[in-house]
Amino acid sequence: MGRETIRVGVIGTGAIGGVHADNLMRRTPGATVVAVMDIDRARANAVAAACDGTRVFSDAGELIADPEVDAVLIASTDATHADITIACIEADKPVLCEKPLATSVADAERVVNAELAAGRRLVQVGFMREYDHAHRDLYDLLKSGAVGAALKFRSLHVNPLFVRELTIESVITNSLIHDIHSARWIMGEEISSAYVQWIPVNPARPGSARLADLQLQFASGALGSLEYNGDSGYGYEVIVEVTGELGQLTTADHPSPALRKAGTVSQAITPNWPERFAQAYIDEVQGWIDHVARAEATGPSAWDGYMSLVVADAAIRSAATGMPQPTKAGERPSMYQ
Amino acid sequence: MGRETIRVGVIGTGAIGGVHADNLMRRTPGATVVAVMDIDRARANAVAAACDGTRVFSDAGELIADPEVDAVLIASTDATHADITIACIEADKPVLCEKPLATSVADAERVVNAELAAGRRLVQVGFMREYDHAHRDLYDLLKSGAVGAALKFRSLHVNPLFVRELTIESVITNSLIHDIHSARWIMGEEISSAYVQWIPVNPARPGSARLADLQLQFASGALGSLEYNGDSGYGYEVIVEVTGELGQLTTADHPSPALRKAGTVSQAITPNWPERFAQAYIDEVQGWIDHVARAEATGPSAWDGYMSLVVADAAIRSAATGMPQPTKAGERPSMYQ
Amino acid sequence: MGRETIRVGVIGTGAIGGVHADNLMRRTPGATVVAVMDIDRARANAVAAACDGTRVFSDAGELIADPEVDAVLIASTDATHADITIACIEADKPVLCEKPLATSVADAERVVNAELAAGRRLVQVGFMREYDHAHRDLYDLLKSGAVGAALKFRSLHVNPLFVRELTIESVITNSLIHDIHSARWIMGEEISSAYVQWIPVNPARPGSARLADLQLQFASGALGSLEYNGDSGYGYEVIVEVTGELGQLTTADHPSPALRKAGTVSQAITPNWPERFAQAYIDEVQGWIDHVARAEATGPSAWDGYMSLVVADAAIRSAATGMPQPTKAGERPSMYQ
Amino acid sequence: MGRETIRVGVIGTGAIGGVHADNLMRRTPGATVVAVMDIDRARANAVAAACDGTRVFSDAGELIADPEVDAVLIASTDATHADITIACIEADKPVLCEKPLATSVADAERVVNAELAAGRRLVQVGFMREYDHAHRDLYDLLKSGAVGAALKFRSLHVNPLFVRELTIESVITNSLIHDIHSARWIMGEEISSAYVQWIPVNPARPGSARLADLQLQFASGALGSLEYNGDSGYGYEVIVEVTGELGQLTTADHPSPALRKAGTVSQAITPNWPERFAQAYIDEVQGWIDHVARAEATGPSAWDGYMSLVVADAAIRSAATGMPQPTKAGERPSMYQ
Repeated sequence: MGRETIRVGVIGTGAIGGVHADNLMRRTPGATVVAVMDIDRARANAVAAACDGTRVFSDAGELIADPEVDAVLIASTDATHADITIACIEADKPVLCEKPLATSVADAERVVNAELAAGRRLVQVGFMREYDHAHRDLYDLLKSGAVGAALKFRSLHVNPLFVRELTIESVITNSLIHDIHSARWIMGEEISSAYVQWIPVNPARPGSARLADLQLQFASGALGSLEYNGDSGYGYEVIVEVTGELGQLTTADHPSPALRKAGTVSQAITPNWPERFAQAYIDEVQGWIDHVARAEATGPSAWDGYMSLVVADAAIRSAATGMPQPTKAGERPSMYQ
Repeated sequence: MGRETIRVGVIGTGAIGGVHADNLMRRTPGATVVAVMDIDRARANAVAAACDGTRVFSDAGELIADPEVDAVLIASTDATHADITIACIEADKPVLCEKPLATSVADAERVVNAELAAGRRLVQVGFMREYDHAHRDLYDLLKSGAVGAALKFRSLHVNPLFVRELTIESVITNSLIHDIHSARWIMGEEISSAYVQWIPVNPARPGSARLADLQLQFASGALGSLEYNGDSGYGYEVIVEVTGELGQLTTADHPSPALRKAGTVSQAITPNWPERFAQAYIDEVQGWIDHVARAEATGPSAWDGYMSLVVADAAIRSAATGMPQPTKAGERPSMYQ
Repeated sequence: MGRETIRVGVIGTGAIGGVHADNLMRRTPGATVVAVMDIDRARANAVAAACDGTRVFSDAGELIADPEVDAVLIASTDATHADITIACIEADKPVLCEKPLATSVADAERVVNAELAAGRRLVQVGFMREYDHAHRDLYDLLKSGAVGAALKFRSLHVNPLFVRELTIESVITNSLIHDIHSARWIMGEEISSAYVQWIPVNPARPGSARLADLQLQFASGALGSLEYNGDSGYGYEVIVEVTGELGQLTTADHPSPALRKAGTVSQAITPNWPERFAQAYIDEVQGWIDHVARAEATGPSAWDGYMSLVVADAAIRSAATGMPQPTKAGERPSMYQ
Repeated sequence: MGRETIRVGVIGTGAIGGVHADNLMRRTPGATVVAVMDIDRARANAVAAACDGTRVFSDAGELIADPEVDAVLIASTDATHADITIACIEADKPVLCEKPLATSVADAERVVNAELAAGRRLVQVGFMREYDHAHRDLYDLLKSGAVGAALKFRSLHVNPLFVRELTIESVITNSLIHDIHSARWIMGEEISSAYVQWIPVNPARPGSARLADLQLQFASGALGSLEYNGDSGYGYEVIVEVTGELGQLTTADHPSPALRKAGTVSQAITPNWPERFAQAYIDEVQGWIDHVARAEATGPSAWDGYMSLVVADAAIRSAATGMPQPTKAGERPSMYQ
């Protein structure tokens, strides 16, 4: 087809890794999966079989080093993200790392420093909402000046039910991290302070979190209200609103037919995130592959991964103290301007 | 309060007559009910008691003739409407007659002629949708030129379920008559032809009607599609749309809170017409009383009552022949311009 | 009409006082306005003339003492509310006092104590949102158990533009006070802490407020996010949402027709609060009059007026300190249970 | 990738042909374009260049005969559709033919007969709405029994403005043909009669059509109301509604963010059909390619192409006579059951 096919190695073939591998194989012109690796060998074999017999590795380093692997997608457990990403950078291979980029600010800083040392951007972080049409349409309207300068960011992140009980810390690092990135991306500026309040799943376990409010202030003085609901009982939704000097924008979710029946008019709500963001995941890997083919990096960066953890850190300190906390970030290197 | 209270006599105290009497007594500053009459004496007594002991008549003519009755509201059975309305005209008393004005074009013509003979407008017909906010707001926007000249009128008239099985003729004369009036009122012109198709309640009774489509053409060439559903199973709705040269208008129904629950986002639909048009019935009698107090007549006229029956007649002929039928109307007298 | 007409004296005939007087005269069966008083005599005379020549007083105390005055509506300047309300209580006359009940917690406490001394409820506070259909419908659904126990209250209170620049303190005491009451009323419990952040109208005047976020916690641990926008540029809106254990409720605003034109489908937004709450103001005085006629008091109470100021006080302390602040309330007397 | 790439020849490279070629080259894993042909050689060359230098033919027959062409997509002028499709059938090559399948019932019948003679289904007709999510979601809900048996089909087909003035005949054959197919597909039954009314673009040219109403009856007695607006002034929309015995379904269009600004809340309407159906066109060729690879034919068939013309023929006879007209169809061959 007049362009080289990018040969991808996938590290981590659990839920989201399997989705990425399938999208790369079947829905991404210009890409193929040539290698998979998982600590669960049987799971890796199953994904490899679905990928028409691609090779299976038992070691991430070997997969990264293999000359047939052009680029790496990381979907292994969170604690491994930083080290594997650094190994890819050192091997000079483009990498798409699932969020979070690391499990601590310090580890994220190590990734940023490794990329700075490499001298060019190789890392994209899996904040796939940038590829979601509802988010993208709001972003484009805002940037077009439709509502003037942004004053307020609001988001609702609603999950249908708990898979397992989560602590307020893990809600911040694993779920609200998406909303923190959306806030930075859409508002186009950094966050200066964070204040968290939450409702525990059970009063006997006050560190557990069923519903959490994250109140932010941005560098310009603009405000942000981010809400997480871990157990809505009704489905999955992400809604973003921005109030500007001249008006207000609200994302429109993907709709389903209006059903009039038995005294109500209703529309189905997407059951969970895989259905809600199915197309965004496809567009994310397509965007990544297109950029890899052109030796460009334009998606969410290692800096975005680092800054989202900086804000999460302030939120976790707020949870511990019951007080608003300032964020503590290093200066943005010129490579990420 | 600086103005005379209008003393109303109510003829017919069944379902809608009782609503009107209650609205006149309790929700209409400037009006009171001084007389009621019903062929069912017990029912009349019950309504009179609720009206703080107003007088009960057993004869419509006596009620109309009573010097303490300033104005008459007719909510008796359809077949009596024309004659009672004519009696009111002859007694020179303003009258609000429930729709239909008559049960035949000829009888409606007798009312018009009586009013012409009286030399001034005394009759208002109970097409209360003119007093409904949703209809009124659409009408005002259309008249403001928001969508340019009107090209197409659409209405959906949805009932929750049958009280009893209806023939296509009675659906036209009792239910679609409301929509026919809305079409004439909102489009601001007369209807020149009608074509009816319907789905019977039971194929064994082809004259019964569960769902009916009434396709109209207006004098200017504009088109109309009116749909009646007698047994929707989901509630009561009236939706009106107008397409103009520059855009389209759709009525917004009275809303209820959005409820997200168990996989859907839903809003309640009004169960039936008394709830849907509760405020319109209040505003209708208030408007009538205000006009009576000023010796004006501005609501739906006897001519509107006549013309709606002219269109219904064409529709009934279409139902009998399976073909589109022209309407057959007399010329509009100057009193009704 | 079988019941006594309640004769009302109106103190303060400015914008909202004039609306109340007009509603009492023309749209409230069972009420009439027999006396008005305003420090601006010309304004009082104009309202009196519109009320068919009712009497004009130059002193609030004389109006309250007049034996022809059955009940008093207070719409004078905020600083006079507490003393005039206490005078009414001492004269044993039912009173509807515009919000806020007072301009300090201490003054509100004096009103509560005066009413406790009187031994029966005479005071209703003008939190008219309790009479708004959109609020009422959400409240009824929540109380019906539709979404289980309430976990989160959200409100957006959007004004079209500033009449004049406001300080954060006056935004809290005059505007957010409505939302504070809605939060307490709808959630059915007291507020334990408040945290305020805001965006100034002009960075040079940091005490001015264009947009304000009020983050609350309720006694049960439930959370509240209240947002005020003083200069939206697009119209007036009040939206309330409640998330419960089983689902979520959102108020539906009063709708206008959908207009498709020139590339968009749009609906008009209510321009300002008089249009948005026109019916609520009518229903509020009707409800008050009905209760006065039955010697009952069921609307927002002096306790509600007091508690809303207690929360406002915590919010103002938060504004001064930049930290969340606990509310400081006395115990609820049994008369207000 | 473990499967053969289907090599497609594209005949006709105008507006929609160019879109199909681009989709096949860039967005359809499993397909490539190896040949193009157009009577406008320059246009063919331009599309070939965009397809990375694919071969250009000057004769449709040669392209069809070429052994490197596995399947053919026809997007040439309407009058050529039937003959080129028959040539493909005779060459035993799968074909996706743009709608309409032919320009007369007789020609469509020739295609059906050719395919019957071939003994297997090779033809798919370009009714791409079957691949549109909004249509598909409504279809799936209806087939799931959500509203019981279907009683009424409604569609609005709204174009932004005329490219050129159209006759009522060409509106029926080129535009309403899409809606006729949707009606047959979604209702799952054949149409027995058609009645057309329309508003001319200019009264001096009564055969021109700006807005047209097509009233249908189905074999079961169910009804259909199809409306076409050629010059809405506001954008492009296709809305489908079905009323069933238990409820009603309405398609939800692809949404854009809600914008509150300057007194309104608005959403953008899709400007025209290429934007509205961009994804449907991609999914259509992907679906076709997937079926070709499996030697199956499951999309809209030659029979669907024929039947849509049978209904169009009745509608054109109705336009000529001003009367409802029955459809005249042959019996459905078992190959199309």
